Amino acid sequence: MTMKIGIVGYGNLGRGVECAIRQNSDTELYGVFTRRDPATLKTLTGASVYSMDDILNHKGKVDVLIICGGSATDLPVQTPALAKHFNVIDSFDTHAKIPEHFANVDAAAKEAGKIAMISVGWDPGMFSLNRLYAQSVLPDGKDYTFWGKGVSQGHSDAIRRIEGVVDARQYTIPVDEALTAVRSGANPDLTTRQKHTRECFVVAAEGADKAKIENEIKTMPNYFADYDTTVHFISKEELDRDHAGIPHGGFVIRCGKTGLNGENTHIIEYSLKLDSNPEFTSSVLVAYARAAVRMNSEGMSGCKTVFDVAPAYLSPKSAEELRKNLL
Amino acid sequence: MTMKIGIVGYGNLGRGVECAIRQNSDTELYGVFTRRDPATLKTLTGASVYSMDDILNHKGKVDVLIICGGSATDLPVQTPALAKHFNVIDSFDTHAKIPEHFANVDAAAKEAGKIAMISVGWDPGMFSLNRLYAQSVLPDGKDYTFWGKGVSQGHSDAIRRIEGVVDARQYTIPVDEALTAVRSGANPDLTTRQKHTRECFVVAAEGADKAKIENEIKTMPNYFADYDTTVHFISKEELDRDHAGIPHGGFVIRCGKTGLNGENTHIIEYSLKLDSNPEFTSSVLVAYARAAVRMNSEGMSGCKTVFDVAPAYLSPKSAEELRKNLL
Repeated sequence: MTMKIGIVGYGNLGRGVECAIRQNSDTELYGVFTRRDPATLKTLTGASVYSMDDILNHKGKVDVLIICGGSATDLPVQTPALAKHFNVIDSFDTHAKIPEHFANVDAAAKEAGKIAMISVGWDPGMFSLNRLYAQSVLPDGKDYTFWGKGVSQGHSDAIRRIEGVVDARQYTIPVDEALTAVRSGANPDLTTRQKHTRECFVVAAEGADKAKIENEIKTMPNYFADYDTTVHFISKEELDRDHAGIPHGGFVIRCGKTGLNGENTHIIEYSLKLDSNPEFTSSVLVAYARAAVRMNSEGMSGCKTVFDVAPAYLSPKSAEELRKNLL
Repeated sequence: MTMKIGIVGYGNLGRGVECAIRQNSDTELYGVFTRRDPATLKTLTGASVYSMDDILNHKGKVDVLIICGGSATDLPVQTPALAKHFNVIDSFDTHAKIPEHFANVDAAAKEAGKIAMISVGWDPGMFSLNRLYAQSVLPDGKDYTFWGKGVSQGHSDAIRRIEGVVDARQYTIPVDEALTAVRSGANPDLTTRQKHTRECFVVAAEGADKAKIENEIKTMPNYFADYDTTVHFISKEELDRDHAGIPHGGFVIRCGKTGLNGENTHIIEYSLKLDSNPEFTSSVLVAYARAAVRMNSEGMSGCKTVFDVAPAYLSPKSAEELRKNLL
């Protein structure tokens, strides 16, 4: 029997989930739930579209909902509300607010006897797992997370808010020298500036003061002031032609010592190189949606994160097959 | 309360576990169990040494036994026998016999209400986990495991059995061009010869026929015939000076496609660079020993592998702390 997945919210992430479901033969798309008028929404695969207002009428027909809203305002409301009625999963990624989100969602999911998985994706998600595994295996060490090369939507948006800017795209880039130093096992102390650079492609309005825009970007607190930032002014055509993708990725590296006197050094490195940030996140969400349904069918409930999911739950293969062919 | 760990067998792995326990403040070494005369065995840290014959007298005093024997003859007997009385963990690494070993151990552990974790280390172990995670997240793709650069004990032993060879050390080396092709996302079909080369450092007896030895190595079926093999004859002094370590490591790389028509490519790469193969394996064993004790204290029993262990069980940190600082 295939697992019926509902998608809540139809942006880049929702479309990614729609595609990922087609790659997993044990899952099927039940439909998309939207706050827009369903009649106006055309999906990539011709999936059914329903109004969010009617979602409770679908109780019992959907095995799990993948909530594809934003972390700022959508998920803090939607995930606990929907966990009262469905198994749910989200990609909540405001790291500092995870404990608060967990508490809200856990209460709702426990009361309903449902599984609610939060903060699933690659960071938080696969990167978090690799930090946990590496720290547990090499307690005497230090780990580093680098992001990029990839597009930061938050930084791109920050540039777009500057007067005279028509459009912009910002890439976060890990510094090669820093990666090399970490991989050497030297466990260096690295400043923010030493770890990443920021490269910006900006379309300025006609007649705009480019020097002023560049200065505003480079001195912007939190976003750019602590980094070495490069600004390139390009045409709207160039931006659309050369910077339409949403690539991302990064590295989690831990260096640790073992032996009677720490005489041996070990390096664990995990890296992602992603053509499409939302599509990869969607693929992680679908694997964890499978786990959520299975864990709930075994009687588990409450809020879970990637730390709470035994890896076998993620695979459509049987335990026997996994042991025989993957172990 | 700290977790009391017993070590069964005192070779490289047993000594590695002894050191790893000191790096984990929530674990303590209960003692070493040996088939030798305990009076003759001197441990690195002055730990208590007991005879294997008396091990059942220690029932109820040890939280978990880490069985550090060999996969060929020790573990198939010891792990099921000891799982009848203790939580146990081993690093059984004969991939083809894992299903059989699992069945034997599972029956014993279930009857006793104990947890028995098998095949823990890095391959099987951390590499297996990365194959599983990557396949689950990117179902439409292909993965590759490369080993090295590192010492293969089995291949070194095979060379030592050749007439006229005094000592030998064999390194397995991944081929750079193959790694580059895999990382490009091309999903190449690679032969055994294209993936790894083998480099041998051989000490020949005085007057031995080196050309004959080299030929015997290079044409040895299973071990060397399918590989490009290099043989260097060196002195015993050089071998002891330059090749005393037991480094190893390798790469698990999966390349997969997403999107409506597979238009986006993603590369997931996990790699290990280890100064000491047995010490790293030992460190993984101690983290999973922690998990075994915790899972058993929650009422779980039976044979488990790394696939069955939710990552949070591996860390000494609380669930709250993990969510706050690592997620």
